[in-house]
Amino acid sequence: MLSNQLFYIANAVGLVAFALVGASKAIREGFDPFGVTVVGLVTAFGGGTTRDVLVNRIPLSLQTLSNIGFGVVGVTTAVVLSILFDEPDRHPISLAADGVGLAAFTTAGAIVASGAGVSPFGVVAVATINAVGGGAMADILLDRSPFVLMRDFYASCAIIGGSAYWCLLALGGDANVAASGCAAVTLVTRVAAVRFGWRLPTVRTSLG
Amino acid sequence: MLSNQLFYIANAVGLVAFALVGASKAIREGFDPFGVTVVGLVTAFGGGTTRDVLVNRIPLSLQTLSNIGFGVVGVTTAVVLSILFDEPDRHPISLAADGVGLAAFTTAGAIVASGAGVSPFGVVAVATINAVGGGAMADILLDRSPFVLMRDFYASCAIIGGSAYWCLLALGGDANVAASGCAAVTLVTRVAAVRFGWRLPTVRTSLG
Amino acid sequence: MLSNQLFYIANAVGLVAFALVGASKAIREGFDPFGVTVVGLVTAFGGGTTRDVLVNRIPLSLQTLSNIGFGVVGVTTAVVLSILFDEPDRHPISLAADGVGLAAFTTAGAIVASGAGVSPFGVVAVATINAVGGGAMADILLDRSPFVLMRDFYASCAIIGGSAYWCLLALGGDANVAASGCAAVTLVTRVAAVRFGWRLPTVRTSLG
Repeated sequence: MLSNQLFYIANAVGLVAFALVGASKAIREGFDPFGVTVVGLVTAFGGGTTRDVLVNRIPLSLQTLSNIGFGVVGVTTAVVLSILFDEPDRHPISLAADGVGLAAFTTAGAIVASGAGVSPFGVVAVATINAVGGGAMADILLDRSPFVLMRDFYASCAIIGGSAYWCLLALGGDANVAASGCAAVTLVTRVAAVRFGWRLPTVRTSLG
Repeated sequence: MLSNQLFYIANAVGLVAFALVGASKAIREGFDPFGVTVVGLVTAFGGGTTRDVLVNRIPLSLQTLSNIGFGVVGVTTAVVLSILFDEPDRHPISLAADGVGLAAFTTAGAIVASGAGVSPFGVVAVATINAVGGGAMADILLDRSPFVLMRDFYASCAIIGGSAYWCLLALGGDANVAASGCAAVTLVTRVAAVRFGWRLPTVRTSLG
Repeated sequence: MLSNQLFYIANAVGLVAFALVGASKAIREGFDPFGVTVVGLVTAFGGGTTRDVLVNRIPLSLQTLSNIGFGVVGVTTAVVLSILFDEPDRHPISLAADGVGLAAFTTAGAIVASGAGVSPFGVVAVATINAVGGGAMADILLDRSPFVLMRDFYASCAIIGGSAYWCLLALGGDANVAASGCAAVTLVTRVAAVRFGWRLPTVRTSLG
């Protein structure tokens, strides 16, 4: 029950944040209102839908209407920001939403995965897919390489956060502690990655 | 039972039509016979397979052999058209098949989704994915942006048709009425969009 | 039981081989260690995960930890090869791994599909998706056309091997015979295709 409440909070926060992020990018690229809505909703719902398919249940996004409301709030916020500011996708609100959404969806994915009885690797994989899947699908729709999501110490934050969730559970923490720890670790890692410009060396550079 | 019959008719029509459309495009791009068949079958089966995965059942395309027959009929028709005409993918038969396939798959998707007990949003989303998913997958295979499907008042027709299906059911119409209405609304909207060159304005243009 | 053992052997061989192939490509393109691992694991696990989603079960890759070990062995081997040789992805070990992985995953896919009770077309389709799905996903991540997998008499080998599996079962062969035949036919076809440079003519060339 508590775990369910945590999931719904994390999921709602992630939906608003990622719909805002996706819609902001689409607005800057000059998409029509339909395209902005589609890119925003795909960014918001793509990761969780893939998560639900992987744990073998009908996607939550198709089952409940309330979730769509959160996506619409995010898209609407992006439209308002685009009227108020010149580069909505680089506005601090968008940057903050990106980090918060990443942390929220990593946590939501880890909660669902550990409830579905997958392996520790499965928990981390599902948490990461929940977190970066929507952005990757939006990139595929726009014919960009979704791999930039991974080169830029972005998916890495979700992997670290998902591992934190599993470690906290394994160490005897309850769902509340694990979820809070997962969200905090993901967010702090992402903020640090942006602030300090973290990059990983290439294999050839480091080994060759 | 009636709903099942309607589904099989819509599905068969969609398979023939979209296999023809996909194979025609691949022929014009100079693909080999194997590539033409793959692009045709992916265009025909991609949307319905995704629909079945989303409503959590083994895809119909893998379960029955008869469906493959419809796909082969479409691919064969495309090959015959390519021998008879210079630009098979712009022949009126191909253009008509594209609109008819869109209407048929929107209807097939709406029938399956409302049978799976998803939300109204879920019905519209699954109907749209059934209608445009195959073309989008073919575009991803060919490394094009599937987003053109959405910019061109194409997916919009499926969204409007899927909404019509749900509204007709909600207003007390039986499955027969809802399916016929869905197919008619989708087809008429698409024909009008092509005929009158419908486009949506961009957010920046309309709001900025 | 025997069929299960055959599956685990084929799956393990395929995981090591395809993780090596995927990681080698990523190393040559100058990816960082994280990117090399991701591309290697996606190449190794993408096909089997899609297979499991299609036959409606939670992906094996998320359920067991042991499988990840095979993927890590493949990635590590690729890193060692990259230190020893200049063009690791064109080294005979990589080329051999690509053919062996193709044969192993075609066989693994055919075993799972025939156990899931799909149609003969379904067996061939799932075997082929198991075999080429991971490479296709890696290509989508890298924003390349996964279609090259199909133009180059590569997926064709999986289709022929999957058909051999089904034919051998239909002719009364047991699972052991069918699996061995499938692996042998796929591997021999692929080696011949590389050795003799097999290509298919285009429809326009052959029919126009």
